[in-house]
Amino acid sequence: MLNIRIEKTQAPKELPTKENPLKFGTIFTDHMFIMNYETGKGWHDARIVPYQPIALEPSAMVFHYGQEMFEGLKAYRADDGRTLLFRPNKNAERTNRTNRRICIPEIDENDYIDAIKALVKVDEAWVPTKPGTSLYIRPFIIATDPFLGVRPSDTYMFMIILSPVGAYYPEGLNPVKIWIEDDYVRAVKGGIGEAKTGGNYVASLKSQVKAHDAGYSQVLWLDGVHRKYIEEVGAMNIFFKINGTVVTPMLNGSILPGVTRDSVIQLCKNWGIPVEEKRISIDEIFEAYQNGTLEEVFGTGTAAVISPVGELRWEDHIMPVKTGEIGELSQKLYDTITGIQLGKLEDNNKWTVEVK
Amino acid sequence: MLNIRIEKTQAPKELPTKENPLKFGTIFTDHMFIMNYETGKGWHDARIVPYQPIALEPSAMVFHYGQEMFEGLKAYRADDGRTLLFRPNKNAERTNRTNRRICIPEIDENDYIDAIKALVKVDEAWVPTKPGTSLYIRPFIIATDPFLGVRPSDTYMFMIILSPVGAYYPEGLNPVKIWIEDDYVRAVKGGIGEAKTGGNYVASLKSQVKAHDAGYSQVLWLDGVHRKYIEEVGAMNIFFKINGTVVTPMLNGSILPGVTRDSVIQLCKNWGIPVEEKRISIDEIFEAYQNGTLEEVFGTGTAAVISPVGELRWEDHIMPVKTGEIGELSQKLYDTITGIQLGKLEDNNKWTVEVK
Ligand SMILES: Cc1ncc(COP(=O)(O)O)c(C=O)c1O
Ligand SMILES: Cc1ncc(COP(=O)(O)O)c(C=O)c1O
Repeated sequence: MLNIRIEKTQAPKELPTKENPLKFGTIFTDHMFIMNYETGKGWHDARIVPYQPIALEPSAMVFHYGQEMFEGLKAYRADDGRTLLFRPNKNAERTNRTNRRICIPEIDENDYIDAIKALVKVDEAWVPTKPGTSLYIRPFIIATDPFLGVRPSDTYMFMIILSPVGAYYPEGLNPVKIWIEDDYVRAVKGGIGEAKTGGNYVASLKSQVKAHDAGYSQVLWLDGVHRKYIEEVGAMNIFFKINGTVVTPMLNGSILPGVTRDSVIQLCKNWGIPVEEKRISIDEIFEAYQNGTLEEVFGTGTAAVISPVGELRWEDHIMPVKTGEIGELSQKLYDTITGIQLGKLEDNNKWTVEVK
Repeated sequence: MLNIRIEKTQAPKELPTKENPLKFGTIFTDHMFIMNYETGKGWHDARIVPYQPIALEPSAMVFHYGQEMFEGLKAYRADDGRTLLFRPNKNAERTNRTNRRICIPEIDENDYIDAIKALVKVDEAWVPTKPGTSLYIRPFIIATDPFLGVRPSDTYMFMIILSPVGAYYPEGLNPVKIWIEDDYVRAVKGGIGEAKTGGNYVASLKSQVKAHDAGYSQVLWLDGVHRKYIEEVGAMNIFFKINGTVVTPMLNGSILPGVTRDSVIQLCKNWGIPVEEKRISIDEIFEAYQNGTLEEVFGTGTAAVISPVGELRWEDHIMPVKTGEIGELSQKLYDTITGIQLGKLEDNNKWTVEVK
């Protein structure tokens, strides 16, 4: 059991009850969790303190060499008042997978979950209750050695901050338009694509700006080698329902192994819907579109849960999906996952964890 | 002319006169430069202040999405007492090239150079004088919006810090051993490889640790698509002298356009040495090694200037270069570039800029 020192704020902020809808990622709660690492000493000094700025040397390695990682999960307020986390063990596992790739020391996964629970408990009043809202949890780690030179840092800070949120995409459950990028590349096999680290996101900005300017809200990436296999969306994995079968790119080393992705695959299997993880070329998708078998397209991610896709644009080809409505399977997945998250549906897979 | 407010430190540190050799990137001078950016307002509030920690919100975008860039150049103390910069306009240009790639607003290149000059002037006493030493200049920009979500930031900080340095590699001018990586990938065409941003360096750490453990001090990267074309070393561009001709990988979008690389190419041309920028496969290098035409190998970069390579390891092939000595051309390039940097040799190309 992680030993956490707690220092409560003397100046609690006002809860954002009036702010509706909550703008994603802009409001933070009263407290944050911090734990330090030092070579030889390990992770130490776990504490919950008032939410406040952090002071770092200008030479701190995180500012120069990108040694940083983050995670994202949510706490939900169930109808019966319980506060539930959704599969936090998957985020703990993925943190360590990212850490191994970018040479950050691993964190005990039980300690990691204890830290999340303890912080959410302290700020439990901030878990919003309106439908579609939740408390977004952002664990992250930064390299803090005051040193200029390329090597893994000897010191790190692990922090967790909390933000009450509404819908991630302004569209909500309305279908989004997606731009398929064939010029820029986000990640490549052998690189850091499957790690949740800043470098992958900064690589995506330019293409995202281009897509926005063209009226598309998200970018779908193709692989960096052949420039034809589907990878993932900026902050979501992608699924296609083609002729009754659900397909999604296999985990190939350059895409993020999403928790929602995994949950969707398991649910489809439970329901007896054929689901395949495989290499999917953009030509296959285009063909399915042309012959009318492209039934549904949706993104999956913690922020939006299920995000229906209403249009794909690939070079000069514009592919409307369905008639601008959310598909039947997308809706069922959304209802089921959010139902489990909110404690309304039976949690057969033991996905939720109560914060006590 | 950039208007810079100057606030001098009340507690100057002791100059590191006793520290010899200076350990690269660990000691910082008395002052730093800061300038802020805000959408609508542009770059503003240029100031030189005492060197101090910076306080940022835990949600500052730089900690999460890697929107950060850096540069590196040096100031040298000439024998006649002048302080000289080496081609700072190239760093200013490259900053904006990086900025365009990762959606950071550009900085006026004259302002950029003015800022460097002004800061070096304030801390001029810190420019060390021993042979092989210099004042390393680290301009960098970080995204500071307190916001969780992937998009370019609306606020940034541009900072410059200074560090008196000795040799970058403990080997100095002794040849280094280089590991050719054929498993991990640093960057790929269409990605951010040619930008000087953290994401490229974090991607290199794991391979670097592996190479170190095997007794190699640096990693040479192969391209991410074919996994056979030579790219660059962790913080250096790479040159080969094969049968009298100097060859180096062409600028293909995934390697950094090095200032030292450019200077070496120009000097070779001036000297009538054939020099080619082209796609070079590892097989070609191996072949040249086998048939005895691989005459010299060296890395180029601001930190080490010229770093002779004494051994290349590619899979199970160990290729010693020469007999563990610095090559003739490597030595001549080193002497010439450092001679110009220190104001000892005629600066025909107008590469040096005096700090007045
Ligand atoms: C690049 C990327 N892909 C996919 C996902 C979806 O993963 P998850 O379902 O775990 O939220 C995310 C993040 O949240 C992401 O950042
Ligand atoms: C990846 C990389 N390649 C090459 C270089 C060499 O560039 P320059 O000669 O401008 O220092 C550097 C850095 O300094 C670098 O970081």
